[in-house]
Amino acid sequence: MADSDKDRPSVQDSLKQVVGLLRKHELARRLAEREETPGQELVEGVGGEQSFTELQKKLEQLHPADVAYVLEALPLAERLAVWDLVKAERDGEILLEVSDAVRETLIAHMETKELIAATEQLDTDEIADLAPDLPREVMQDVFRSLSFEEREQLRSAMSYPEDTVGGLMDFDMITVRDDITVEVVLRYLRRLDEMPDHTDQLFVVDRQQYLRGLLSVSRLLVADLDTPVTAIMAGATVHLAPDEKAQDAALAFERYDLVSAPVVDGDGKLIGRVTVNSVVDFIREDTDSELLSAGGLREEEDLFASVWSSVKNRWTWLAINLVTAFIASRVIGIFEGSIEKLVALAALMPIVAGIGGNSGNQTVTMIVRAMALGQITAASARKLFAKEIGVSFINGLIWGSVVGLFAFFIYHKWQLGLVMTGAMVLNLLLAAIMGVAVPLSMQKLGRDPAVGSSVMITAITDSGGFFIFLGLATLFLVP
Amino acid sequence: MADSDKDRPSVQDSLKQVVGLLRKHELARRLAEREETPGQELVEGVGGEQSFTELQKKLEQLHPADVAYVLEALPLAERLAVWDLVKAERDGEILLEVSDAVRETLIAHMETKELIAATEQLDTDEIADLAPDLPREVMQDVFRSLSFEEREQLRSAMSYPEDTVGGLMDFDMITVRDDITVEVVLRYLRRLDEMPDHTDQLFVVDRQQYLRGLLSVSRLLVADLDTPVTAIMAGATVHLAPDEKAQDAALAFERYDLVSAPVVDGDGKLIGRVTVNSVVDFIREDTDSELLSAGGLREEEDLFASVWSSVKNRWTWLAINLVTAFIASRVIGIFEGSIEKLVALAALMPIVAGIGGNSGNQTVTMIVRAMALGQITAASARKLFAKEIGVSFINGLIWGSVVGLFAFFIYHKWQLGLVMTGAMVLNLLLAAIMGVAVPLSMQKLGRDPAVGSSVMITAITDSGGFFIFLGLATLFLVP
Repeated sequence: MADSDKDRPSVQDSLKQVVGLLRKHELARRLAEREETPGQELVEGVGGEQSFTELQKKLEQLHPADVAYVLEALPLAERLAVWDLVKAERDGEILLEVSDAVRETLIAHMETKELIAATEQLDTDEIADLAPDLPREVMQDVFRSLSFEEREQLRSAMSYPEDTVGGLMDFDMITVRDDITVEVVLRYLRRLDEMPDHTDQLFVVDRQQYLRGLLSVSRLLVADLDTPVTAIMAGATVHLAPDEKAQDAALAFERYDLVSAPVVDGDGKLIGRVTVNSVVDFIREDTDSELLSAGGLREEEDLFASVWSSVKNRWTWLAINLVTAFIASRVIGIFEGSIEKLVALAALMPIVAGIGGNSGNQTVTMIVRAMALGQITAASARKLFAKEIGVSFINGLIWGSVVGLFAFFIYHKWQLGLVMTGAMVLNLLLAAIMGVAVPLSMQKLGRDPAVGSSVMITAITDSGGFFIFLGLATLFLVP
Repeated sequence: MADSDKDRPSVQDSLKQVVGLLRKHELARRLAEREETPGQELVEGVGGEQSFTELQKKLEQLHPADVAYVLEALPLAERLAVWDLVKAERDGEILLEVSDAVRETLIAHMETKELIAATEQLDTDEIADLAPDLPREVMQDVFRSLSFEEREQLRSAMSYPEDTVGGLMDFDMITVRDDITVEVVLRYLRRLDEMPDHTDQLFVVDRQQYLRGLLSVSRLLVADLDTPVTAIMAGATVHLAPDEKAQDAALAFERYDLVSAPVVDGDGKLIGRVTVNSVVDFIREDTDSELLSAGGLREEEDLFASVWSSVKNRWTWLAINLVTAFIASRVIGIFEGSIEKLVALAALMPIVAGIGGNSGNQTVTMIVRAMALGQITAASARKLFAKEIGVSFINGLIWGSVVGLFAFFIYHKWQLGLVMTGAMVLNLLLAAIMGVAVPLSMQKLGRDPAVGSSVMITAITDSGGFFIFLGLATLFLVP
């Protein structure tokens, strides 16, 4: 175990080492600056120099993804110090791996020449990924340096939004013709220095680039040499269209356990492929942004972003919530007369609103998830409505009785307890109905139900809860 | 395009077709039951028969994962009707694909004999995945039917928890010895009928099964026949230990774009492999359960679960929230005297509490995410604290002024406005401090900060917000 651990230091360990070396270097530099004694300066200077080369060596050993990880975890000044130490020819790969927020900070720190050099080392589909963050003149220069075919690929890759199959697509596929034998294929492959990553299959095409089938590498290895390609190729059960949603491609990869899949245009011509590594990255980013937006962050935030840019990132959400809070506040305002007469209402009303919000969000989570998987049909929607109403009714009775007893126990008024119970039941029913209806109607309106459904439900159950509880109390309790 | 669509009906289309056929069959059966006229019965009976075989044919064409998808989306009665139509030899694969909740409903509907037959067709690592859901006598029977080697594999696979590398591991790897040439390897492979899925590399071991290196299939294809294996194999930069966290393995797959990785024991002996498809499934399940728990659902819920089991699934969360709501209610209770004198406080207090909760949850989302990636070091924690406090202070001033103006505008008391602003600033600062401190301390206590941090923050900012606002108001406003 000790041995295998030595082979593979975890990326967290690397981070710690880099931070340690940075500190050592920085400390040495500062001491050297402060102390004027030449002897002292020399000693410390050497220590600083040493940690500097050590750091550079350490970075060289790290995988680009690990360098990216270290950069993400460092505050801005240290991040840029490390970035300067990274060999120029690795800049491109590393820029691809860091998050959008961190990429901006790195690119802002680079000169045009450096950016061009970094970009030119990349594949066309990778350049397309970086393109939105690069200055115009850099892209123009890079574009001029490409071959005709590469320019076409770049144009094609850039024409698709990030969340489509076209955005995930690369052009590193090996194609073979459909009129040859296994032996010819193997001879052809042996002439290549190496095969592109994630080549689990070759794409069989005819003279006009129409996709004819897929030839898995495993079959190629176990096949007899004189077998014709057409005899062992499989039909392309999954082929993607470039304008298909990336989400759907991801589901296909998950479902059918794919490593790569062909992308064909409307006529059936092969134009690229999608590989599982881009799908994994997409899934991670997709669920990440779902979690971020559930938490009310507009986008991924650089951990060490300036206070000001963080404030802006969190702005929208707080503003929306302020509006819903104002509305709820005005609903309470209507009943100020009742509260003045029976102040217990003020203490009890947040319970009704809060539990309603929780219950509604449970329903929304269920429904949004099933909708994302496309599992809700017209017939099942009705069943789901019935089920959610049933669940809420039971929950309302149970938890409503608990809060009713609580109210009775604190305020010694059984009428108050009954009103609490009734308000809880009604607010949970409201939560259930809106918890199903809101995401369904958002989808009908062509909006993403995952974004905003939860805010809306909370707003409804807050204002609704206050209204129901204070309204019932005004009707039945207030003299 | 029309052509390619015909090849690959989407799984949603399949679902619709199955539902349609089920309805047709059901309708025919009912009509046949109701109408006694023999002619009528015959006609409808034929229609029913026809849709029955059509349905069976349709199911046969579907990939096991797609059958699983259809089963998930159907209410219980229809789900079991479809399940009965699935060919017995496909039962095992399909059981592996459905969610835990749906698997329970299917297994409960099967006889011991059927279960044994379904399980026996699976690989040992797959049997291990099903094992927790199978009745004891089924597992005993299956175990007896296995070879000695398979029993060892099953024992090994079952000994690791689901969320470890051992839980993701399979045994379908091809190993080759380190003292042979490419030609021998190719000859050996050609004797196999087919290679296991996701074989992007062979594992090179010595006589004692110690892992010596990895031989990628692509290199094998492009290498000269007389090259020794050791000359073209790569060192295993990533090898996993069976008790490592699955989460860490997933990060390694993402970071290094892996298709498969070897699993070695403490001595360095090869015991299995992990493939990208299990990693993708793990990532999906992991983020899913994160989203579910963020929404307050204990576990994945069968869309058509009985009302009662849904109530139980949502129970814990509502109970916890009830307790925090009771506490907040009692905090308000302390200030009932003040509210009686100045009823505006009742209408304004939910604003302070609500915005505090939102701001705190934004901080928690950021911190939990960075912690999951291991990006928070002791030094950066201090910086993050400072940043979050800065963000909250600015947000508090801005939004506090907005709500202060709102309060002034509604109630025409500038003192009330000032108290609102002050309370907002203080509550957002509380939210920031606790938003960093709560997840960090949960991690120190060895608990998962993703679960519960959000509830705790909301509880703190609710009770804290009421206390701060009503406390300030009592000090400065109430006569």
